[in-house]
Amino acid sequence: MNKKYSELAELFRSEKTDEEILDFLLNYHKNDIADMMAGMTEEERKRLYHLLGAQKVAEIFKYIEEPRKYIRELSVESAARVISEMDSDDAVDLLEDLDPEEKEQIVRMLDEDAKKDVKMLLSYDEEEIGSCMTTNYICIPENLTIRQAMSELVKQAGENDNIMTIYVVDEKGVFAGAIDLKDLIRARENTHLEDLVLKSYPYVTDHEKIDDCMDRILDYAEDSIPVLSEDKKILGVITSEDLIEMVDNEMGEDYAKLAGLTAEEDLKEPTLQSMKKRLPWLIILLFLGMAVSSVVGLFENVVAVLPVVICFQSLVLDMAGNVGTQSLAVTIRVLMDENLTGKQKFQLVVKEVKTGSLNGILLGVMALLCLGVYVHFFKGYTWMGAFGISGCVGVSLLVAMAISSAVGTVIPMFFHKIKVDPAVASGPLITTVNDLVAVVTYYGMAWLLLIR
Amino acid sequence: MNKKYSELAELFRSEKTDEEILDFLLNYHKNDIADMMAGMTEEERKRLYHLLGAQKVAEIFKYIEEPRKYIRELSVESAARVISEMDSDDAVDLLEDLDPEEKEQIVRMLDEDAKKDVKMLLSYDEEEIGSCMTTNYICIPENLTIRQAMSELVKQAGENDNIMTIYVVDEKGVFAGAIDLKDLIRARENTHLEDLVLKSYPYVTDHEKIDDCMDRILDYAEDSIPVLSEDKKILGVITSEDLIEMVDNEMGEDYAKLAGLTAEEDLKEPTLQSMKKRLPWLIILLFLGMAVSSVVGLFENVVAVLPVVICFQSLVLDMAGNVGTQSLAVTIRVLMDENLTGKQKFQLVVKEVKTGSLNGILLGVMALLCLGVYVHFFKGYTWMGAFGISGCVGVSLLVAMAISSAVGTVIPMFFHKIKVDPAVASGPLITTVNDLVAVVTYYGMAWLLLIR
Repeated sequence: MNKKYSELAELFRSEKTDEEILDFLLNYHKNDIADMMAGMTEEERKRLYHLLGAQKVAEIFKYIEEPRKYIRELSVESAARVISEMDSDDAVDLLEDLDPEEKEQIVRMLDEDAKKDVKMLLSYDEEEIGSCMTTNYICIPENLTIRQAMSELVKQAGENDNIMTIYVVDEKGVFAGAIDLKDLIRARENTHLEDLVLKSYPYVTDHEKIDDCMDRILDYAEDSIPVLSEDKKILGVITSEDLIEMVDNEMGEDYAKLAGLTAEEDLKEPTLQSMKKRLPWLIILLFLGMAVSSVVGLFENVVAVLPVVICFQSLVLDMAGNVGTQSLAVTIRVLMDENLTGKQKFQLVVKEVKTGSLNGILLGVMALLCLGVYVHFFKGYTWMGAFGISGCVGVSLLVAMAISSAVGTVIPMFFHKIKVDPAVASGPLITTVNDLVAVVTYYGMAWLLLIR
Repeated sequence: MNKKYSELAELFRSEKTDEEILDFLLNYHKNDIADMMAGMTEEERKRLYHLLGAQKVAEIFKYIEEPRKYIRELSVESAARVISEMDSDDAVDLLEDLDPEEKEQIVRMLDEDAKKDVKMLLSYDEEEIGSCMTTNYICIPENLTIRQAMSELVKQAGENDNIMTIYVVDEKGVFAGAIDLKDLIRARENTHLEDLVLKSYPYVTDHEKIDDCMDRILDYAEDSIPVLSEDKKILGVITSEDLIEMVDNEMGEDYAKLAGLTAEEDLKEPTLQSMKKRLPWLIILLFLGMAVSSVVGLFENVVAVLPVVICFQSLVLDMAGNVGTQSLAVTIRVLMDENLTGKQKFQLVVKEVKTGSLNGILLGVMALLCLGVYVHFFKGYTWMGAFGISGCVGVSLLVAMAISSAVGTVIPMFFHKIKVDPAVASGPLITTVNDLVAVVTYYGMAWLLLIR
């Protein structure tokens, strides 16, 4: 499976004839050819395209992560022929990657079917499920016999290779259900086709938001799910391959958002674009940080009298932040389940606060003991004074961690409720609220216990 | 698609006969029945199991998130019959959910085939790909005619419903390739079966770690991939449904680890178990925080002379932390691509530092201006003094952000290199290093510029 990167290039540089090379090529998996193309020269790749023909090249291009470079090695006519052979969603992905003029030129030269499909997919917003579907599916009328259905399948399978599920429509072209291919294959001649149709087969409608229907599609665990128009006509299907991509994207986006990026980044992205994705949150955080600073400023007099307290400010703030992030991560994952009841949400808050407080007690005691010893020996305070200070840290840790857990759970739930993505909005707000809580508790405690 | 939660319960509470109810039941999607079972009483569910029979109940149980409760409503014999009908991986998932004695009892009563498969799957470590495979696949010898292959398929399809890819073995039972079902369906009578076999079809071996081979499997975008033993015999397959689950799990784990949890949590988990998942990192972070505290302690004299500097400590530390997290999130996603070259990694570091520094310049200037005005008006410093202080903050921000970006990129790369999961280990180390850098820069700057 680990084909040598240069294997194909060597093949093309050998004395072999076109036919011999083609024989070798047909033995490779398309994905391996896609990988090895990076090791070839432009001239060699052009010979490869020529040898394989539009259909096979289309299958290979599906596997190439950045096909832009290679598409430019083809004439506009050849590029259009290749893209016409691709599944509509892959074709659109590729076209979206090109410059607007290139895209225009190629779309104009696509064959009629492909042009129609591509234009339909491009008409959807990228957040709508319609933008991810493929028009590669099998569809038959409901009044066929088993034998007719089978031969219709063989006929359509030449063009469309998602044959696992066969969609059935009534005489008006309205979606009537689906047949599992294995049921059709196992069926006896004299069975009625109707008996094979799953009438309550799940579907989505074209303008639904991906985020809203993804969980539902995943729940049904089918190989493909039809995308219907308002009037229940089939427009396309979502395949399990699309689903894997959707799960990967959605999780990747959430992941990025949790870290204060507005969208996912990749290696090839220009610095300016990365800056744009990161700056919005950094600026918001800067101003929230300034707000925290002005609250810290209120305790200047505590610090002036007892400078040793500043040593542990970062400790208390960091721990509150860490606990808040843990609760946030758990809550966001739990909120992905859209069927959560109010009672379950309440249970989650209770559980988080319980976990946070119990951890807080443990860590508070550890801090009390370790820091007391440290302050006594290294800062030269009396045992009383040292444990006074470490006591402040311990109690602040406990209080800050309990409150942070609650904040880290309630804030994402609130954003989820008002339909704002909790992964984006929660992070900074939680950091700020937790910083404020921690600062006020810590310095307040120091003032009360040690100074007054 | 949004079946009423109580629809099934109502059906069972009506005066309908068993036959009428069964007619209704067969019209529902299995996933909908699974959902609606929660709204029924135990008695009603028992009638449902009885009406549907083991095979259909098995199909429904696949969709139930926590089947433990329902399995207990069945006698051990019935439970064993149901589990025998399930795909081996689903059966194992369910069995793992039961108490050890229950599991033992049921496994003993499984039918021979199921028992063999379940025992084989259970023999793998849960990190090995063998633990996720299913033994539901079609396998034929390579020397058949097209017609023989087709009838062999129809025969095996009664038992195994992953028919999209048909695996081919030689006379010794060694994996020889795969046939795409659509090619078999489209093939003419007189084609040689051999011509349909994809000989370089990708595969994995049973003891490979899921993390190591997942990306490779995803790359090939096939409906199913065979799992082979050391001697290249087929043991099972990984289906696209398994893949979706693997992607979801892997991302969820990474997500949780980034937030300092040792593993993913869910709602139902006891508090004690959640504590255990969170405490390890919190304790490490506490001690790392103490290390930072002792460094802050070195600057006590700066604070004693100029207490106003403490206002902005949290600001500088938080911003350094935020930038480090952004770089970490980007780096972890980029590192998921196992084919990354050393040059690409270096490029990533350069890009991150560039992005961090440019953002640092922008935010540094913003902080300089805003805080200068704030300190002058609210803290009563002269313009000179105010901009001296805000200048320290601005320059520290720039330096801390540039260094944090580098740290947030290099540390996960280092852990990745030494084969430690970067999502787990990086977070705390980055926080600590960044805190140290920020503290030393900020107080060092304040001491140099303002005090000396």
